[in-house]
Amino acid sequence: MQIGLIGLGRMGGNIVRRLISKGKHDVVVFDQSTKAVDDLVGIGATGAESIADMVKKLKAPRTVWIMLPAGAVTEKTVETFAGLMESGDTIIDGGNSFWQDDVRRAKTLRENGIHYLDVGTSGGVWGLERGYCMMIGGDKETVDRLDPIFSVLAPGAGDIPKTDGRTGRDHRVENGYIHAGPSGAGHFVKMIHNGIEYGLMQAYAEGFDILRNANIEALPKEHRFDFDLADIAEVWRRGSVIPSWLLDLTSAALAKGEQLENYSGHVDDSGEGRWTINAAIDEAVPAEVITAALFARFRSRKDHTFAEKVLSAMRHGFGGHTEPPKPSAAKPAAKSS
Amino acid sequence: MQIGLIGLGRMGGNIVRRLISKGKHDVVVFDQSTKAVDDLVGIGATGAESIADMVKKLKAPRTVWIMLPAGAVTEKTVETFAGLMESGDTIIDGGNSFWQDDVRRAKTLRENGIHYLDVGTSGGVWGLERGYCMMIGGDKETVDRLDPIFSVLAPGAGDIPKTDGRTGRDHRVENGYIHAGPSGAGHFVKMIHNGIEYGLMQAYAEGFDILRNANIEALPKEHRFDFDLADIAEVWRRGSVIPSWLLDLTSAALAKGEQLENYSGHVDDSGEGRWTINAAIDEAVPAEVITAALFARFRSRKDHTFAEKVLSAMRHGFGGHTEPPKPSAAKPAAKSS
Amino acid sequence: MQIGLIGLGRMGGNIVRRLISKGKHDVVVFDQSTKAVDDLVGIGATGAESIADMVKKLKAPRTVWIMLPAGAVTEKTVETFAGLMESGDTIIDGGNSFWQDDVRRAKTLRENGIHYLDVGTSGGVWGLERGYCMMIGGDKETVDRLDPIFSVLAPGAGDIPKTDGRTGRDHRVENGYIHAGPSGAGHFVKMIHNGIEYGLMQAYAEGFDILRNANIEALPKEHRFDFDLADIAEVWRRGSVIPSWLLDLTSAALAKGEQLENYSGHVDDSGEGRWTINAAIDEAVPAEVITAALFARFRSRKDHTFAEKVLSAMRHGFGGHTEPPKPSAAKPAAKSS
Amino acid sequence: MQIGLIGLGRMGGNIVRRLISKGKHDVVVFDQSTKAVDDLVGIGATGAESIADMVKKLKAPRTVWIMLPAGAVTEKTVETFAGLMESGDTIIDGGNSFWQDDVRRAKTLRENGIHYLDVGTSGGVWGLERGYCMMIGGDKETVDRLDPIFSVLAPGAGDIPKTDGRTGRDHRVENGYIHAGPSGAGHFVKMIHNGIEYGLMQAYAEGFDILRNANIEALPKEHRFDFDLADIAEVWRRGSVIPSWLLDLTSAALAKGEQLENYSGHVDDSGEGRWTINAAIDEAVPAEVITAALFARFRSRKDHTFAEKVLSAMRHGFGGHTEPPKPSAAKPAAKSS
Repeated sequence: MQIGLIGLGRMGGNIVRRLISKGKHDVVVFDQSTKAVDDLVGIGATGAESIADMVKKLKAPRTVWIMLPAGAVTEKTVETFAGLMESGDTIIDGGNSFWQDDVRRAKTLRENGIHYLDVGTSGGVWGLERGYCMMIGGDKETVDRLDPIFSVLAPGAGDIPKTDGRTGRDHRVENGYIHAGPSGAGHFVKMIHNGIEYGLMQAYAEGFDILRNANIEALPKEHRFDFDLADIAEVWRRGSVIPSWLLDLTSAALAKGEQLENYSGHVDDSGEGRWTINAAIDEAVPAEVITAALFARFRSRKDHTFAEKVLSAMRHGFGGHTEPPKPSAAKPAAKSS
Repeated sequence: MQIGLIGLGRMGGNIVRRLISKGKHDVVVFDQSTKAVDDLVGIGATGAESIADMVKKLKAPRTVWIMLPAGAVTEKTVETFAGLMESGDTIIDGGNSFWQDDVRRAKTLRENGIHYLDVGTSGGVWGLERGYCMMIGGDKETVDRLDPIFSVLAPGAGDIPKTDGRTGRDHRVENGYIHAGPSGAGHFVKMIHNGIEYGLMQAYAEGFDILRNANIEALPKEHRFDFDLADIAEVWRRGSVIPSWLLDLTSAALAKGEQLENYSGHVDDSGEGRWTINAAIDEAVPAEVITAALFARFRSRKDHTFAEKVLSAMRHGFGGHTEPPKPSAAKPAAKSS
Repeated sequence: MQIGLIGLGRMGGNIVRRLISKGKHDVVVFDQSTKAVDDLVGIGATGAESIADMVKKLKAPRTVWIMLPAGAVTEKTVETFAGLMESGDTIIDGGNSFWQDDVRRAKTLRENGIHYLDVGTSGGVWGLERGYCMMIGGDKETVDRLDPIFSVLAPGAGDIPKTDGRTGRDHRVENGYIHAGPSGAGHFVKMIHNGIEYGLMQAYAEGFDILRNANIEALPKEHRFDFDLADIAEVWRRGSVIPSWLLDLTSAALAKGEQLENYSGHVDDSGEGRWTINAAIDEAVPAEVITAALFARFRSRKDHTFAEKVLSAMRHGFGGHTEPPKPSAAKPAAKSS
Repeated sequence: MQIGLIGLGRMGGNIVRRLISKGKHDVVVFDQSTKAVDDLVGIGATGAESIADMVKKLKAPRTVWIMLPAGAVTEKTVETFAGLMESGDTIIDGGNSFWQDDVRRAKTLRENGIHYLDVGTSGGVWGLERGYCMMIGGDKETVDRLDPIFSVLAPGAGDIPKTDGRTGRDHRVENGYIHAGPSGAGHFVKMIHNGIEYGLMQAYAEGFDILRNANIEALPKEHRFDFDLADIAEVWRRGSVIPSWLLDLTSAALAKGEQLENYSGHVDDSGEGRWTINAAIDEAVPAEVITAALFARFRSRKDHTFAEKVLSAMRHGFGGHTEPPKPSAAKPAAKSS
């Protein structure tokens, strides 16, 4: 099958590689970096010199997959493609767009007969080897027609055990991709996936933090422990209630350096966590854990919040308290291991 | 190896079964339920009629494994054994005791030469087949001596991939059990395991709740989705960032009935979540996610909190607001699937 | 000064009363309820029969104050007025509109020379007597010109002590109204006011909840207390760190019935709490307390969340736990007082 | 009335001053600082040179008020007094002791006929002038007998309006002190007072933080505001829903320097917030807001949590993300005012 792919970064490049190596698909590629294009031409892709050139090199009905940063860049690219494509063509947004943008775009493009799919694509740097979990929104016909693309990118059933009681259900799901619903549904489900991811990560992080601080001097001597976090992460991978891929990754990181000194502690967030909270609020669904996880990241990026200074100012006001000028919180004692 | 086991419930009974079937160990069993004893005698265990009888049937140095509800029952049982045992014997508490109780007990027993191990045992109803992840606290010599017991109960390496970079580390960890530290360390690590478990569960639960409510009437029509939660849970098991054993279980539950009507929504908690927060507070470590997860369970068990009535009373006070007498929150529309 | 006021509900009606009784202003009023209009005509207002009629009865440059539910109703009303008014006229939105709507409206109206002020108006049912705290957004000239209106509605300095160190600052602030900034600033500040209000309310509510449950049977007998909440609320009004108007109202409510049985516990929320969180997220500012307060209200309006059922399903999955079909949480024992 | 007071710090010294100046009481004072003793002798107190000397200088039945740091110091002092006093004497702990310590101490002392009162004392540096809100636990007879002490220290009714509907209730409450219940009840109520205080403070702090960051560059230009926080704090003191003493103090602090540059942002916590959460957990009462307020303080005292590094390590693991080495969160632009 022929497909164009624009945006050959960490995710996009590997998607092309998987399409070519596993699917024998004919992929036309374009990126601002000519090196990125050349690399993929080297393994069998067809290079394009511009969006217009890509459209020209694709035979109708065309399919293009956009793998660019969400927001203005993707928006602009969708518009440019739309201006050059014709009825029957399809635009796939495989990035992390806000799902309400998908709803709007699909509606506008539909007026010109152009199909639009939003594909939440999970897999990170592991996708090339492991496959991509894809959450797809759009009309059934288009999703079905492009199955050769999705089935190649998906991880497949692999050796993950089947779930009991799943009968008469869509077989694609067990191969790691889903037609989640109409336009927007794909990125909505991906958004929730990321929201959950934030919560899971923070749960592990807090647990390891409490283990890490179990030896501080503020504790009574007989209640202090000097835990080996790398071993604890590893042991939980087997037979406990909390094994997960995220735990696997944590164990691997801790195995390399238990104190994680090479990490600054500054934690970014992408839009999905924020949008998840917005969705929860729109639905009046309490989502304390995912919100707390997001706020922990916000806080991680500040030396101090203004809120904290307001607290200190109040404490000075009613109690004459003078806060120490520098952090003096109990710190873990030096560890022998 | 010979061992006594008291408390033949869901966990204890299966531990005996695994010790006998996989380890060919000689297990003396006792429980208030004679049926529980008889069942295990039927597969090769030796029945005891009382704690005293168990002690009598074990050859010195004796080892007993207590698998009873944490708190008064376990405390009493430890005391009774201690009164009947002699120097060199070992008491294992495999239940969910509070780790500070372990610290205290070990110290007291040590005065009489009795060894004490606290073994946080994870595995639930799956342990018989899957093995138990064990987090062990106590002195090295005793832990090493009883390795034949632990190695049989542990899941073993199985087909879970090895973690890169783990070299020169304790091999037991990769078989699913760990000597975590001195007395109390085992239950401390198990406590944190359960705290993390609470957070993970709540993260998934919130995500599915937002998906479930994505079709409420309060939302604009073009922004409503009618998601198939069972398929979404299943698809995330493959290639996404959030696969885990808990997700496997969720997928299995949703496959049986997507609306989970058979669950009341009342969620219990055992002590570990509470103790985890207490530990976080003692260490001055922020643990928002685990705490929020615990509080969500507290809230689930109440029709209404008194706090909510105080809020309503204030709202009436300043704004003349009269709250509706019954819940009127937007409810998901009937689902077609 | 002449002014038109549309929306004669709890807030709007009292604003008219205060404008007439304290300010001797000439107020033209309109409402869908003719009774509401007639009542105010009875105390000196001029009745209008429609928006068009009100515009006709006002001399240019006209000023109208809209006091209607935020959202579609207010939006429609602004548009209708705009279609009938002329350059130099002013529209005031005194309701609880979303501040971004103000930004948009002000820009559109400005093109036709119509001024627009957004006035966050706090005071509830007490405003008639106590005055209204007003947070005003819009251009300086219009705000200054309409000072005779604002100064009459504001509470004035009263007997609230002056704040030390406030010199050379806008005197209006000490009289209870503020020109907070350009269009949108008024409702933004009001939004934050309400967000803080949510947090304050929840803090008190949680405190009283813990006091209320201090006598549950789950606690050791020597650690149970049977507190008189009405007296505790009252005593904190004097000399403690936490006196506030909200505490005054709580004390008054508790004095009438300590158990607050007449409140269902269902707690509504208006948009401001939600928008506050959205603003915090847009700014990447952690706002745990305000968010938790909002989520507590969401939760109060549900019998059970779907999230809770997901938790139960997982617990059943890994541990065979069966949750009780009905709430069985420890309940406060009957109180003698 | 004669009373001994030990611990002449910020609180203790002013309590003596108020007892002498307003109550004409005969106060015997002791402190490790002879200067503190001498200062009070200068205004009419009787100096003691030791605990033993104080006991000697008091006539039976003696009353001593301990105003020392909670924990070991207070514990030791109670024991020392107990060893020197006789049946009928009374020990008052006016500090911030953990209420369960009061329960224990009262029981022990009762065996020797010594009375024990726990008095949660609120008022901070303002108490001398404003009076102290006192929450008293202990037996009724002793509380009644010492009323001359409490009534002088209490703020009195002052000009704070009476609460409607309070009839037939204890008049002391309206004067700012309360006999809250048996031993421990006083410090329990004070603990909850402080827990609420944490929540209130954090609610204001978050609100001001969102206002403060409303002008960051990450926001669209037309949605940025440059608020005058000092004026906003002040205006809310009049006619809004959120006036409080804490807001008065915040307004005063902001009037002195809007950016609060002189505060580090490091915020301490005393034990009460922690104990409040522990009590909530023991009662299974959700207390999200108070907990979030406490955790915000914990976080304020760390450069980075270990949890944050775990998050970064996971993000690197699945996505190849490299977190920036230094904080790069959007910062408020320079403010003109």
